[in-house]
Amino acid sequence: MAYTIDMLAVGQKESFSKTISDFDIYSFAGITGDFNPVHINDVAAEESMFKRRIAHGMLSAGFISTILGTKLPGPGTIYLGQDLKFKKPVYPGDTVTTVLTVTEIFPEKNMVKLETVCTNQNGESVITGTATVLAPTKE
Amino acid sequence: MAYTIDMLAVGQKESFSKTISDFDIYSFAGITGDFNPVHINDVAAEESMFKRRIAHGMLSAGFISTILGTKLPGPGTIYLGQDLKFKKPVYPGDTVTTVLTVTEIFPEKNMVKLETVCTNQNGESVITGTATVLAPTKE
Amino acid sequence: MAYTIDMLAVGQKESFSKTISDFDIYSFAGITGDFNPVHINDVAAEESMFKRRIAHGMLSAGFISTILGTKLPGPGTIYLGQDLKFKKPVYPGDTVTTVLTVTEIFPEKNMVKLETVCTNQNGESVITGTATVLAPTKE
Amino acid sequence: MAYTIDMLAVGQKESFSKTISDFDIYSFAGITGDFNPVHINDVAAEESMFKRRIAHGMLSAGFISTILGTKLPGPGTIYLGQDLKFKKPVYPGDTVTTVLTVTEIFPEKNMVKLETVCTNQNGESVITGTATVLAPTKE
Repeated sequence: MAYTIDMLAVGQKESFSKTISDFDIYSFAGITGDFNPVHINDVAAEESMFKRRIAHGMLSAGFISTILGTKLPGPGTIYLGQDLKFKKPVYPGDTVTTVLTVTEIFPEKNMVKLETVCTNQNGESVITGTATVLAPTKE
Repeated sequence: MAYTIDMLAVGQKESFSKTISDFDIYSFAGITGDFNPVHINDVAAEESMFKRRIAHGMLSAGFISTILGTKLPGPGTIYLGQDLKFKKPVYPGDTVTTVLTVTEIFPEKNMVKLETVCTNQNGESVITGTATVLAPTKE
Repeated sequence: MAYTIDMLAVGQKESFSKTISDFDIYSFAGITGDFNPVHINDVAAEESMFKRRIAHGMLSAGFISTILGTKLPGPGTIYLGQDLKFKKPVYPGDTVTTVLTVTEIFPEKNMVKLETVCTNQNGESVITGTATVLAPTKE
Repeated sequence: MAYTIDMLAVGQKESFSKTISDFDIYSFAGITGDFNPVHINDVAAEESMFKRRIAHGMLSAGFISTILGTKLPGPGTIYLGQDLKFKKPVYPGDTVTTVLTVTEIFPEKNMVKLETVCTNQNGESVITGTATVLAPTKE
């Protein structure tokens, strides 16, 4: 099930939520090679400005792609670009809710822009940004 | 080992390379929940415009953070923002080389901008973009 | 988004598809401790009646729970029971499509029965069975 | 080492125990795609009838297959079917002990039925059921 360009409307939203576990952080480090001490070293992280380990920003950014490719617009979406601002750290145990909202539709280009916001369990924005995609060509 | 703002120069580069395996793609899907069929379903992927399964774009984007947090500028770097353009798909078995190059330095803000480019084994750009970071305050 | 008992109808369906990779089989073995040679030993598996390694039956059975808990009836579903018949082996690289169909609704007990069928890419049933659940009490 | 049909006796037992970690739950979600919030979202799970996150029922059911394929009857066993009743939730940190007991032997069909019970560290049954298998044809 996917939304083609003519099925999309400005203001349309979808969300995805997950509690970030150490499994996620350690797996992400293992896949990407991002062994920055602030992610996988308790001792170094305590001495950092964050005072304890934090999740990789790109891990939470991955949830944007989750929504684009499975919910809005859904399978068949072509991801063209993404702007990201990392506003606050995500700690192990934080629950990240990612919300995408359609903000602009360009039917002649089959292109859509969506606002992309990740918040933590306290309602604080941890990532903001904009996704640019081509809409699926079939439902 | 990290580069503080005064140790950085425009044109400075670092790189990281990895062959993308199915382990990477399936793990990334499992962490982010991005079960878009084009990533984890051979039958559906063959019917897509890509003709076979592709890696998540954010997986390759994760390599940018790998370099920022471990090499250039290195541990202590604060990731402020990232622009990404997804130019071509990455297939299982592709070898992605990510290169970061310092393009602008703002000493008064302790801020640095870097060009971020991921290429495949054929030298084709798969992701281009710009990272904005605060430099580490100690080596 | 979930279906409460009054929103469900006999014949309602949902599906989920995934290509079974070695990542899946090895991870499943690692979680459950099911190191049956037919799953993780090429040499022994070649001598077995299956002629090569096969996936754990319970791995594919897990997709039934995926649909129950995320799609039909969705979050809030209470899983009461499951009958499973393992009809054919699933090999690494097979694409398993799981389809759940509502077959009986018991409004007074808030209970639902669903037919659960997993097929491979050739349309052969690999698992058949019946799930019994309590429907979510809120959408 | 496996038990052929003539080596099996009614009442014969084997067990397997494991403490369920978040690694197990998050990995299982990642393999099956079962991102039901009750498994991977602390905030949503607290609002559910379970009050906190629970393990996937099929994860504990996987331990039944572990015993069948590695201990009783052991390698070479063909898994024909399984009935499962999910009696109580399994929480992260619970220690699940799975016990299989041979209840019926059909030598002419080479078939065996086993009672399958998973209990938690308090001795409460969390899953009950029956497995039906073909016994290995060689030790």
